[in-house]
This record gives sequence, structure tokens and C-alpha cells, in this order.
Amino acid sequence: MPHSKPVTPFASETGDPFLLTPGPLTTSRTVKAAMLHDWGSRDANFVAINKSVLAQLRDIANGGDEYVTVPVQGSGTFAVEAMLTSLVPRDGKVLVLVNGAYGLRAKRILDIARRKTVVHQTAEDAPPDLKKVESILKRTPSITHVFAVHCETTSGILNPVANIGALAARYGKGFLIDSMSAFGAVPLDARAVGADAITASSNKCIEGVPGLGFVICRRAALEASQGNATTLVLDLHDQWSNFEKTGQYRFTPPTHVIVALHQALREFDEEGGVAGRGARYRNNCRVLIEGMTALGFRPLLAVDLQAPIIVTFHMLDDPRFDFQRFYDGLKERGFVIYPGKLTVADSFRIGCIGRIGEREMRAALDAVREMLQSMGVAGTSAQAA
Amino acid sequence: MPHSKPVTPFASETGDPFLLTPGPLTTSRTVKAAMLHDWGSRDANFVAINKSVLAQLRDIANGGDEYVTVPVQGSGTFAVEAMLTSLVPRDGKVLVLVNGAYGLRAKRILDIARRKTVVHQTAEDAPPDLKKVESILKRTPSITHVFAVHCETTSGILNPVANIGALAARYGKGFLIDSMSAFGAVPLDARAVGADAITASSNKCIEGVPGLGFVICRRAALEASQGNATTLVLDLHDQWSNFEKTGQYRFTPPTHVIVALHQALREFDEEGGVAGRGARYRNNCRVLIEGMTALGFRPLLAVDLQAPIIVTFHMLDDPRFDFQRFYDGLKERGFVIYPGKLTVADSFRIGCIGRIGEREMRAALDAVREMLQSMGVAGTSAQAA
Repeated sequence: MPHSKPVTPFASETGDPFLLTPGPLTTSRTVKAAMLHDWGSRDANFVAINKSVLAQLRDIANGGDEYVTVPVQGSGTFAVEAMLTSLVPRDGKVLVLVNGAYGLRAKRILDIARRKTVVHQTAEDAPPDLKKVESILKRTPSITHVFAVHCETTSGILNPVANIGALAARYGKGFLIDSMSAFGAVPLDARAVGADAITASSNKCIEGVPGLGFVICRRAALEASQGNATTLVLDLHDQWSNFEKTGQYRFTPPTHVIVALHQALREFDEEGGVAGRGARYRNNCRVLIEGMTALGFRPLLAVDLQAPIIVTFHMLDDPRFDFQRFYDGLKERGFVIYPGKLTVADSFRIGCIGRIGEREMRAALDAVREMLQSMGVAGTSAQAA
Repeated sequence: MPHSKPVTPFASETGDPFLLTPGPLTTSRTVKAAMLHDWGSRDANFVAINKSVLAQLRDIANGGDEYVTVPVQGSGTFAVEAMLTSLVPRDGKVLVLVNGAYGLRAKRILDIARRKTVVHQTAEDAPPDLKKVESILKRTPSITHVFAVHCETTSGILNPVANIGALAARYGKGFLIDSMSAFGAVPLDARAVGADAITASSNKCIEGVPGLGFVICRRAALEASQGNATTLVLDLHDQWSNFEKTGQYRFTPPTHVIVALHQALREFDEEGGVAGRGARYRNNCRVLIEGMTALGFRPLLAVDLQAPIIVTFHMLDDPRFDFQRFYDGLKERGFVIYPGKLTVADSFRIGCIGRIGEREMRAALDAVREMLQSMGVAGTSAQAA
């Protein structure tokens, strides 16, 4: 019996536990090493690096000349708020599609900014009902924009942004996408889905470090947005105008974070862009779900709804299963997982993204098996795995 | 004649040019090396590091239990906007003291957020007129707050925050200080100056890397501010409440930047806190001004108005002096300086802050001398130096 087997922590290149979370994530040693230099934010070398970063992000969304990337210092939510309050005019009205915490957060941002909203909410394990979405759009001509979350990390569900975009286009609405946790791993063509804007951040599937959000904007939508914003720092139009004039940030950028993002984008390209990155994450996700299922865990979502980003598992229905002990034991073994955020079920989450591959996922599964055994939960399924 | 002397670049520990700017600055190798690890933002280890950082920042302002540090992801201006829009109620009115770009920026933030303002503006090389400030406060009872910039980096002037605070207190107004470029190097006692809030950022005199602003708030002022904010991400009350409840950020923090700040604060302590750091910068400033004066340059400010942060020099009144060539030549030699931002005079700036000491300042002066000689500007004064 392997109960007393000594723990051999499985560590990343830098000796840290692997972050199997929705982010911040495990990044490569070389991405972090890019931060070992200081850069003047107005110096030509840094300005060129930043320009290249913005162009590459736009290219990932296949934005072409019609689109431009506007960075926003801070976290992804800063970029979401900048997108919503800059692109939706003060008398605009947004249809917010909600099936988790990030949809609700967008609704809260719009409420605080006093933009009108209509909410279509579905359960955390259910995509929006496209027939109902269409019916709302048909009967509510005052709606100016539709907002959707690409991968809702509350559950890990992949929302059908292409179908939602088609409806928005049919009814002449602007389409705003929070692609925070999916951008770079799940294909998203800005023009094909008819997005006015797509927002994401440095520290998800691009595998940079946290500190920068960005909004890939349709140039025409951005040009029309002057005067909408109700803040200085989150005003995308003002931020963009300054780049057009000077190539520089209005306010001090997180230089080290941006140089790390530049290196992360190089490694993203080397892996084959969205196709390569997405393939690795899909494989991570498959290995994880198969392994966890064999150990007796049940994923929340059906396979066809699951994005290859983060997987929600139901807690084991066994009185000997103690989540805190499970969490701590996995961390000791080199893997940080994530508590659940669901309202519908008691759950936890394990991420598939960041600088991890099949080897790390299998080692994480070994650690899960060890923890089940040490808690005495190891039933037939855990032993059979 | 040393005209053709080969250039020997003077480089920092990591081989980069020294950043003699208002920031981002040159940081120590060890501060940057702290970023070579990945941290889970909700993990206990990171939460403890962040808690220690917030407490240390409050202690630098001698805030005691009456004050609390609320961090704001993004740049310093994000923290200034968060301070102004969270602490000034929607029907508040702010007396904004302006003698440079940062005072004007605060005015712009308040205008966008639709807070009423009264402006007392003086020339870029003149502190506020305290008699006029008092007269405005006396005749305008509707003013709720006074806003001042501690060191206005437009010129490098040190504004008399203690005297301004005393006036604000006498007339019962809240006092809000932008201490961005001075915090940690110029003594500032939150209780003694009667501040409701003091804002600064990670990448100035604390010598961390850019990506985090913070506001040191009087607890009572913060408690009274619920509902003031007109944004989600810049709402200090909400950010603070979440720390009180969970110890965690509401939205992904720039983990690497915060861990670097933690290391920077350790090095700040080792140098003797505000006294030690301030002494090094004052010496840098003295060496710089003496050396530049000997080379024929004239500082904008009288000694008693000059903060030991950044020095504005008038351009040389010599047709052979070409600023772009001067800038580029200094950069080749290992020193990045900063263009002027003055409206009153054609000028440039050289910073005294960051991981630099007398040796680096003297090397910078050597580079200045070389550039003057190579441009043929070297008159009697340059040769005499």
C-alpha cells in the first residue's frame, strides 16, 4: 500500500508549485527572465516592443487593419470596465448574457456606470438560450450592444460567441466579448464574429505575467466612442489617441510586465499560435478529465460545453473527503488548485492552462490519487486508476 | 583634447542604461530577481506577502492604526483617480492646487468624474500662495477637500504640504496628497499633515517596478466613502472591504510586481527607511546640480524649492546645443534622461532617484561633459568642470 510513500513535490522550472488555476498561471522561466531588465517607458526601444505586442495581440484575433489593440494597465477586469464604459454610450443599453460570476460582474460594472442593461441569465452549466436572445433583441430595439463571456471560468463553460455574434449582427447591435480566459487558446476571429471589441489579459493563455489587460477594438467603434468614458484612466479612446500621436502610454505602463508579454508572445508563436497552444490545452483537459473520472470525480459540464481552460469537478460525496486537506496536500505535492465559485453545486476547479503539459497533468493526477488514499477515500475507482 | 575619446558605457548591474527619469527607474538586481517566481494570487503565501507590503507602506507614512493602505492595480494615476473619485463625494468640491502637469491632471480627473473644483494655480516654478489658499478656503465654505501634489515632477518643485494641511485642517477640509514621486524619500507624516489620503506608486522612491499604485487612507475617511465611487475597479471602499473580509484582491493583482515591491521594501528598510533613502537622493541631487552648474547649465528652481527627486535644467542658450543629439549621446553612454514638460521654459530633466548613487551621478556628469565637447559647446565652463 502506498499510503506512507514519501511526498516528492513536482516542481516547475523555478521550483514553484504549478498553478492549476484560472490565473495567474505558471509561466516559463524565459518569460520571467525577460523582467530582469529595466526599461524607460518613453524610450524608443520600449516603445517598439510595446508596438509589436499590440500588433501581435490584434493578429491573434485576426483583426487586420480594421482593428487596433488598446492596452489597459491593471487586471483583466480593468480592461472589461474600460471596454464597457468606453464603447457603450451613456444612453446605451446592453444585453448582458450571464451564466456565471463574470457575466454578473459586467452587469455590476454597467450598473455602477449607469448604463442600462437587459439580462439574459442561464444556469452556470447552461449556455445562453439563443432563441430567447433573439426574441429579446427583436422586441427591444433600444438595445445598443450585446455582451458575452467567451469562456465563463466560474464553470469552465464555452459560450457560443459565433452564434451570439451572428444574432447581434442580424439586429444591428454592437458585440462586446470578454475572452479573458480563452483568448489565444480557443480560436476567435474578430471579423468573423463581428466583434466591436474583445478583451483579455496578459496572464491567461498567452502565458505572460499579470498586470496588463487589453481591448482589441474595431477601429470604427473606437473612433465613435469619443466622450463616452466617465473616467480618465479607463478611457480607451483617449488611451488610443495618445498611442496614435506619440506611440506612448498616457500613464506609466508596467514595463516589466509588457516585456515579459513580448517574450510570451514569441513563445506563443513558436508553439504554433492558437492552433498549437489550443492543442496542448485540449490534451491537458482530456488527460485531466479522464484521470479524474477514473478516480471517481464527476465533471460539472458535458464534454460539448467544456472549454479546454479550467474544469469544474463536483466534490466527492464521501464524508472522508476533506477539501482543505485535499487542497493543502496537493499544494505540498506541487500543485495549486482552485476552490469552486458555483452557486449550483459544491465544487472545485483544476486549470488546464499555463506552462504545463501532459507530464504535469499526469503528475497532478498522481498527487490527487495519493491524497485520496491518504484520506482513506480511495475506493475501487481510485485504486483502479 | 578628449573629443575622440572612445565611449565607455556606464551600465547598471544588469547591463541596462541608468534611468535618470521620474520613473520607471533603475531598480536593484535583487528586486527584479524576486520576479523569477510565479505565485497564486489567492494562495496563503502571496496573501501574507501582500499584507506585509500594505502594512509597511502605511508605516512609511507613520499612519498607525488610524490609516490603512489600499492598493490599486495599474499606474500611479490609477491610484490618484481612485483616491479622488472614491473619497470625494458626488456633491463634493475640491480646491486643486496646481503648479504643473500633475495638478492639472487631477483637475481633469475631477472634471470627468463631475466633481466640482476650485483651482489655485501658480507658475511651474512657484509654490501655491498660502495666503490666497486661505482666502479661498475662507470665502468658499462649499469646498470639501484640498488636493495638493507633494513633489510636482513637471518642474521638480517641493510643495509645502505641511502648511497646506494645516490650512485644510483649520477650515475643516479633507486633505488629499499626490505624493507619487516623493513618497519614501521626503518625510511625510500622515497624521501630522492631517491627510485623509496619500497616494504613491511602486516604482518611484521605494524602487520597485511599475504596476501598482496605492492610497494610504485615514480609516474614518475610507469608511465614510461607501457609495461615492462611479467605477467598480477604482472603488477604494470596495477594494478595502474585500481585503478586510478575505485578505485578497477583488481582481487579479500583478503578483510579480507585488513580490518585487516586497523585496524593494526590504532594501528600503536596510538603507534606513526615509532617512537613509532621502539622504542618498539629496546627495545625488547636490552632486548633480553642482556638476551641471559647473558645466554651464542653469537649474530652473531655487535651492529651497527643489525636491531631491528630479531637477529641471534650462536648455543651453547655444546654437550648437542639439537636445536630441545630447539625449542620444547620453543614452549611448548609459544614461537615459527626460525631456522637459514645462510651459514656461525650454528645458530638460535629470532624475536623482532609483538605484543610483554618487558614483553614477558623477559618471552621468562625465557623459554630459563629453557630449558638450562633442557638440563643440564646451565653452570655458565645460572645460573648467
